[in-house]
Amino acid sequence: MRNTFPAQRARRSNLTRSPKRPSPPPMQLGMIGLGKMGANMGRRLMRDGHEVVGFDLDESAVQALEDDGATGAPALEALVDELEPPRVCWMMVPAGDAVDATLGDLLPHLDEGDIVVDGGNSNYKDTLRRAGRAEEHGLHYVDVGTSGGVWGLEEGYSMMVGGPDAAVDQLRPALTTLAPGPDKGWGHMGDVGSGHFVKMVHNGIEYGVMQAYAEGFDIMKSKEKFDLDLQKVAETWRFGSVVRSWLLDLTARALEEGQDLSGIEPWVDDSGEGRWTVKEAIDLDVPAPVITDALISRLDSRVEDSYTHKLLAAMRNQFGGHDVKSSDE
Amino acid sequence: MRNTFPAQRARRSNLTRSPKRPSPPPMQLGMIGLGKMGANMGRRLMRDGHEVVGFDLDESAVQALEDDGATGAPALEALVDELEPPRVCWMMVPAGDAVDATLGDLLPHLDEGDIVVDGGNSNYKDTLRRAGRAEEHGLHYVDVGTSGGVWGLEEGYSMMVGGPDAAVDQLRPALTTLAPGPDKGWGHMGDVGSGHFVKMVHNGIEYGVMQAYAEGFDIMKSKEKFDLDLQKVAETWRFGSVVRSWLLDLTARALEEGQDLSGIEPWVDDSGEGRWTVKEAIDLDVPAPVITDALISRLDSRVEDSYTHKLLAAMRNQFGGHDVKSSDE
Amino acid sequence: MRNTFPAQRARRSNLTRSPKRPSPPPMQLGMIGLGKMGANMGRRLMRDGHEVVGFDLDESAVQALEDDGATGAPALEALVDELEPPRVCWMMVPAGDAVDATLGDLLPHLDEGDIVVDGGNSNYKDTLRRAGRAEEHGLHYVDVGTSGGVWGLEEGYSMMVGGPDAAVDQLRPALTTLAPGPDKGWGHMGDVGSGHFVKMVHNGIEYGVMQAYAEGFDIMKSKEKFDLDLQKVAETWRFGSVVRSWLLDLTARALEEGQDLSGIEPWVDDSGEGRWTVKEAIDLDVPAPVITDALISRLDSRVEDSYTHKLLAAMRNQFGGHDVKSSDE
Amino acid sequence: MRNTFPAQRARRSNLTRSPKRPSPPPMQLGMIGLGKMGANMGRRLMRDGHEVVGFDLDESAVQALEDDGATGAPALEALVDELEPPRVCWMMVPAGDAVDATLGDLLPHLDEGDIVVDGGNSNYKDTLRRAGRAEEHGLHYVDVGTSGGVWGLEEGYSMMVGGPDAAVDQLRPALTTLAPGPDKGWGHMGDVGSGHFVKMVHNGIEYGVMQAYAEGFDIMKSKEKFDLDLQKVAETWRFGSVVRSWLLDLTARALEEGQDLSGIEPWVDDSGEGRWTVKEAIDLDVPAPVITDALISRLDSRVEDSYTHKLLAAMRNQFGGHDVKSSDE
Repeated sequence: MRNTFPAQRARRSNLTRSPKRPSPPPMQLGMIGLGKMGANMGRRLMRDGHEVVGFDLDESAVQALEDDGATGAPALEALVDELEPPRVCWMMVPAGDAVDATLGDLLPHLDEGDIVVDGGNSNYKDTLRRAGRAEEHGLHYVDVGTSGGVWGLEEGYSMMVGGPDAAVDQLRPALTTLAPGPDKGWGHMGDVGSGHFVKMVHNGIEYGVMQAYAEGFDIMKSKEKFDLDLQKVAETWRFGSVVRSWLLDLTARALEEGQDLSGIEPWVDDSGEGRWTVKEAIDLDVPAPVITDALISRLDSRVEDSYTHKLLAAMRNQFGGHDVKSSDE
Repeated sequence: MRNTFPAQRARRSNLTRSPKRPSPPPMQLGMIGLGKMGANMGRRLMRDGHEVVGFDLDESAVQALEDDGATGAPALEALVDELEPPRVCWMMVPAGDAVDATLGDLLPHLDEGDIVVDGGNSNYKDTLRRAGRAEEHGLHYVDVGTSGGVWGLEEGYSMMVGGPDAAVDQLRPALTTLAPGPDKGWGHMGDVGSGHFVKMVHNGIEYGVMQAYAEGFDIMKSKEKFDLDLQKVAETWRFGSVVRSWLLDLTARALEEGQDLSGIEPWVDDSGEGRWTVKEAIDLDVPAPVITDALISRLDSRVEDSYTHKLLAAMRNQFGGHDVKSSDE
Repeated sequence: MRNTFPAQRARRSNLTRSPKRPSPPPMQLGMIGLGKMGANMGRRLMRDGHEVVGFDLDESAVQALEDDGATGAPALEALVDELEPPRVCWMMVPAGDAVDATLGDLLPHLDEGDIVVDGGNSNYKDTLRRAGRAEEHGLHYVDVGTSGGVWGLEEGYSMMVGGPDAAVDQLRPALTTLAPGPDKGWGHMGDVGSGHFVKMVHNGIEYGVMQAYAEGFDIMKSKEKFDLDLQKVAETWRFGSVVRSWLLDLTARALEEGQDLSGIEPWVDDSGEGRWTVKEAIDLDVPAPVITDALISRLDSRVEDSYTHKLLAAMRNQFGGHDVKSSDE
Repeated sequence: MRNTFPAQRARRSNLTRSPKRPSPPPMQLGMIGLGKMGANMGRRLMRDGHEVVGFDLDESAVQALEDDGATGAPALEALVDELEPPRVCWMMVPAGDAVDATLGDLLPHLDEGDIVVDGGNSNYKDTLRRAGRAEEHGLHYVDVGTSGGVWGLEEGYSMMVGGPDAAVDQLRPALTTLAPGPDKGWGHMGDVGSGHFVKMVHNGIEYGVMQAYAEGFDIMKSKEKFDLDLQKVAETWRFGSVVRSWLLDLTARALEEGQDLSGIEPWVDDSGEGRWTVKEAIDLDVPAPVITDALISRLDSRVEDSYTHKLLAAMRNQFGGHDVKSSDE
């Protein structure tokens, strides 16, 4: 059946790439930041014949990638020295100050025409600012919103690319390799900033979609009358239903490990892009109640002693009598 | 200043009624259910010269009202016997089965033309059904949605009345006494059921209004930079601001007792009418996001180990890696 | 690449089934209701060797299925006569009164041990009631929540089945054929009613997921700065991204026909199951803000002259001055 | 009855102040911006014996205030010249660039120790920035969040004041006059910025409260069965009910002019503070679903051809068949 997501099968993968896929022309690039995302992207690139020079503040991360065939650099300057101009420096560092710091460290060593890529989850407004800074040095700045998480190594990454045409063209061999297919799962969205903008909205949608599933499963779990096997429900929906999706595949997989999720805290983090999406919607006058409430639910998950709820209880006490929990309105 | 709500002053009240207000013609009625609401309504009626016959399953509640001048009845049948036809039997019992049971017990003892009043928080659909049952016995059925809580004894009750004109006319002296003013705070809304319908919506609005204040105070409490005195904020808003209201008066009062509300659990009950309002809005195709989200927030306050949030955390774990709290999306 | 949804490819389908798939043992069943869903399900069954007796109030629908190999029945009684006991009568009629009417018409003609299937979008509470009625006649009642829409003929249907084990076993050959794969996309959820319950929640989730995408695309469309190609965005996300799904495939397909969707009214219907899901969540005390707001957004789409918004404008006018649109708060 | 809001009575006002209220010591101040708010505040100040120097870009506004006893200034510099040091310059100009421009024009003419007041609806973050600028010139900067709208002239304004103690003390006579009572309806919230912060949250709450009422009245209007008199409902609730409030008084008043609100467009503006409140809640990790959804409802009121809804309709069309409005899910 064609609409099988790869969630289950990937576990059997032998981590070698399909021999059937034609390789793009090899290119060289510097990968800065060898965490979960950067290191795996480096590996996927090398498997397809590209040359990767890697740097990370953590030397063991550099060593690990060297073991897989990369050239390790002990410092940013050394990384730049290893690259042939026009260079490609691909940053996969945490969004925020680290990007500014890395960019600042790179600038003095780069030459006109080099390309700096930000493949992290940066706010597109920061990207616009940084691109201006890079362009003042004669550099090209490209933002690559990257989705795929830990599955990207095997499945490929979905990449939303913003930046000037010539620079994106130069990156094409790497993008082709990193994507799920040569012409699938990546796209040049528009000018610089557009990649991170689209990735931001992607994550806002992701919040809403995840929350919709989670609420639905919560409702089913609460319906004691039917004593449902939620893993079976998810599995049933994975094929042929309107709500089949990769997140549903992952849900089915998570439920295999125990439906009560007893080892998991009801605490949901957020990495910022949902907030940005909600604020952007407000700035654009677009009503986005579902994405917004999905964010609010995550905030809720982290509230320990809600003042809102205490004050509501206090008000009810004021007008309804002394026994807060049983007072009549 | 005229727009002072009575929240503060009522504490100084000596519980005697103003001599300036003309009394309506005295009437007799049976009050069934002498809890917080029923007993206080009985007292307010007696102070104004009405005759009250009281019954409650709890004998001490009957005794207490007798001490204040009522005629206590040891049973429903005895209460009926004490009343002159056409009788007025005013039920102030908990919404639900107790109303059906009380009505069932009353019916065999009443005569054509007697009036049964349901002053509780019944669902208007139940009221329509019960009115049909009462009318089969030749009785008049009147629903009185009653707001005012523990303040009603002194401030008067706001009453939304549904039922046939003649029956409402007969109740007028009692309504006039119970209300905040002879022609203020009570109204004949329409046919039977309309009183409880309007009260239902009243409570739905109440949820939304309370939640709006509570969220606002929560935001202010969380803004450490300004270290605000929330009681002072509430007090400031009580006079002249657009959001002045009785609920704000109560909020100011609650905050007097300690702004951190440390003795209060963040657990908010609901008495059903908010749920009915939300379902009614859906049935009527009326978008009511604020009333709905106010209800959902109350549900949230009572969730102990959210499956929704556990499943969200599990999904993030699946696509983002193993460390749930810090995983990158 | 494995995670390709079939949305695009199905258009090239030659409507013949894969020769690789083993056929289940053939069975006979009566299909009552030959609309879009019932007729296509009949066709999928016949292609796999099953025998279908079809009935519809619309004779041309019966004729059309006869043309494809079915036995047409001119009346329900005739359909029953054509079936070998223990019979399988599969209702695919509009949810609501039509189901009660059909069941009522069937009952006198069926024998103990026959199976009645409701494959429509019935409310599970009605299903419980109807099952009781069928069981009084010694029949087995099975509810099959069916998802897949117009794609089901080729892709297979996702089916959530509720009912007694023996009856579900008897239906297994048909379920196996209708599903996307012999053991994929259908599941026995539990006792009668559970199939429709799970389908109800499925649709609630569907509302939330659809709304999340729609809001996200609205935000992107509103961001004039980047002048995004929304079809390209959807296409990019279809492969490798966290939000890849069948609904996204359909979105990409819809956007191919013109991104401004100018021929489409901003008016969104609902078939009832979203409402039931929201009410069920409330009854179960489960906070479900996203599914709820997705429903509310659909209600919003159909409001023509919002009284809520008129009243808000009137209030602003009252406290802020006369010029409603520009008044200062 | 004590809890009567003044909405109705104010219409009978003869615009003279109560003789019973002791006047504060007279002071002199410059009022910059003589729109609805600034002019009325000037009038209220003059009635109580204060001396007002007024300036506005619109000469007729200056003339009108002169006619009521103010000293009109033809330019900002002239206004400054008319004031005795330490001067009080009270800006009542539209939030945004006008405040920066006015402050910039004032600075060269003021002396150390002078006080600049921003009484408008500025974002508190701008206030913090401007205060820094003023302090560099040795000035005191005070922010006064002002609520009360067109009723403030007679009822008094609720004022939330932020700034240094000494400056607020110097303003006390004016604040005492402007407030509903000498020690009621105004308060020193804290350091500079706190006044506008509290006013921002005030307006966020206002959105939620207004929306709760509006939704409730919409539900009642839609319930044709009871054919309710909504003005009567509002009037009934004004006395004794839990939801009595000034906004309800205004609602009752608005409904007097015709319950169908036929002359009013369902279009609701917002002046920015609701947006800021929602963003602040997000930044503070405070779940504020009701205030947020109230904002979203206002955004909704202004959408003309919702892309969200068009895309939802398109998706339904894709999976459910061709007839968008009647397609079955």
